[in-house]
Amino acid sequence: MKKLKRSARLVEMTQYLLTRPHTLISLTAFADRYQSAKSSISEDLAIIKEVFEDEGLGELQTHAGAAGGVKYTPKMNRDQALSIIQDVCRQLEQPERVLPGGYLYMTDMLGQPGLLADVGRMFATAFASSDIDVIMTVETKGIPLAYATAACMNLPVVIVRRDNKVTEGSAVSINYVSGSNKRIQTMSLARRALREQSRVLIIDDFMKAGGTIQGMMDLLYEFNATVAGVGVFVESAEVGTEERLLEDYVSLANLTEVDMKTKQTAIRPGNFFG
Amino acid sequence: MKKLKRSARLVEMTQYLLTRPHTLISLTAFADRYQSAKSSISEDLAIIKEVFEDEGLGELQTHAGAAGGVKYTPKMNRDQALSIIQDVCRQLEQPERVLPGGYLYMTDMLGQPGLLADVGRMFATAFASSDIDVIMTVETKGIPLAYATAACMNLPVVIVRRDNKVTEGSAVSINYVSGSNKRIQTMSLARRALREQSRVLIIDDFMKAGGTIQGMMDLLYEFNATVAGVGVFVESAEVGTEERLLEDYVSLANLTEVDMKTKQTAIRPGNFFG
Repeated sequence: MKKLKRSARLVEMTQYLLTRPHTLISLTAFADRYQSAKSSISEDLAIIKEVFEDEGLGELQTHAGAAGGVKYTPKMNRDQALSIIQDVCRQLEQPERVLPGGYLYMTDMLGQPGLLADVGRMFATAFASSDIDVIMTVETKGIPLAYATAACMNLPVVIVRRDNKVTEGSAVSINYVSGSNKRIQTMSLARRALREQSRVLIIDDFMKAGGTIQGMMDLLYEFNATVAGVGVFVESAEVGTEERLLEDYVSLANLTEVDMKTKQTAIRPGNFFG
Repeated sequence: MKKLKRSARLVEMTQYLLTRPHTLISLTAFADRYQSAKSSISEDLAIIKEVFEDEGLGELQTHAGAAGGVKYTPKMNRDQALSIIQDVCRQLEQPERVLPGGYLYMTDMLGQPGLLADVGRMFATAFASSDIDVIMTVETKGIPLAYATAACMNLPVVIVRRDNKVTEGSAVSINYVSGSNKRIQTMSLARRALREQSRVLIIDDFMKAGGTIQGMMDLLYEFNATVAGVGVFVESAEVGTEERLLEDYVSLANLTEVDMKTKQTAIRPGNFFG
């Protein structure tokens, strides 16, 4: 790279950090990249850190010393997150979203890249200090949320299938009971998709009694992997809490009431907001 | 937002533009946001533009005048893209990736957020000047590629299902013949997922004869929508060109040879590279 002026270097460093979250970059690497003294790089990083933290974009952790470096951790502050989720709740309360079985149509919202980026950042905030190797979801609607979170956390994604496709090689399958409708279902994961001992963050779009997520946990057991966290976009509080299979999870929104006759629903921010 | 010094403003503007691709932002909006004169904003944008274009991050189009503004179009230059795809080809040639039926195991690569962001940027480059309303894919493995492309192009995603799930409402289903193995299969899309007259970019992970993509095109016909482009990550040239159902598409890699006995494959960069 050609030698840049400070103003241009700030632009380049900002994009470099933003596109490499949760990655330790040494001051030496920056100094080489920009052909500049480490002291100048440190001053630039101080400016970037102040802007990122003032604007609630996340943290820039700098480690001093010869082995020092900098790591960008994307986060979203509580007020920003709450305002986005309140808007999500308003949209989800539209009567035409109520589907048979007490489900909500939200596929359109899970197709919006802007909202997905925000939601990924919220999950990344919730699990920023957890020790996680990989993010897992089950097809299909949890997939964009899992990838949005993975992009913020710089982690790989594995997708649990509801069938066993030829293009995945040998797989482990389990049966599980969907908690809300008590039906037996199957899910499977390719043998080579997940290393033993992995610490796994489970992300899904919707949780009623938690049977699907419990199924993913059972599957992890078969891989000698452990659950490092569970995040759901919308939980449904319709099931009594005594029926819920799962206690420790983060939800962004909580569907507290569905009236199938009037198509009225009530949705409020989830336990992420305390 | 508090008033920032130029150096801090450059950092903030860079992140603001990077997180809002393909969006026209007026100079007035920037001037208000930073409580600065439009002339200062224009100078800042000139610096950002030069860095983005020198480093191959994309284009910053500025429109002068009272109604003027700026739009960031993420792109990747050919050399960068080629170097990434050559590395992808090397990884895909590993013998243990060959699966029964001449498929390649590439799910692990489609789980890497860094590679996905790069591939999304390549498709965004290929279709930057096309008029597109929405990106479509079919579950499951095309989904991360579709979202990565959508994030760069600021477009919504619709996912065609291989079943007809209760949580989608009424849907249109079609049967199609998979071109390579001649089996009849079904795909469906929720009625409310796609507006009539939409111009659709189809993205998928793998194409042999093109039957699945032809199926998506047939489905689009039912919605009075049109195909604005087709992008595939890997095409397989194993099928004779006379058998290919589809002629106009962009591929990033081309699987030219699979020897099931020796597990040897040959993969080279696709037609994106000319």
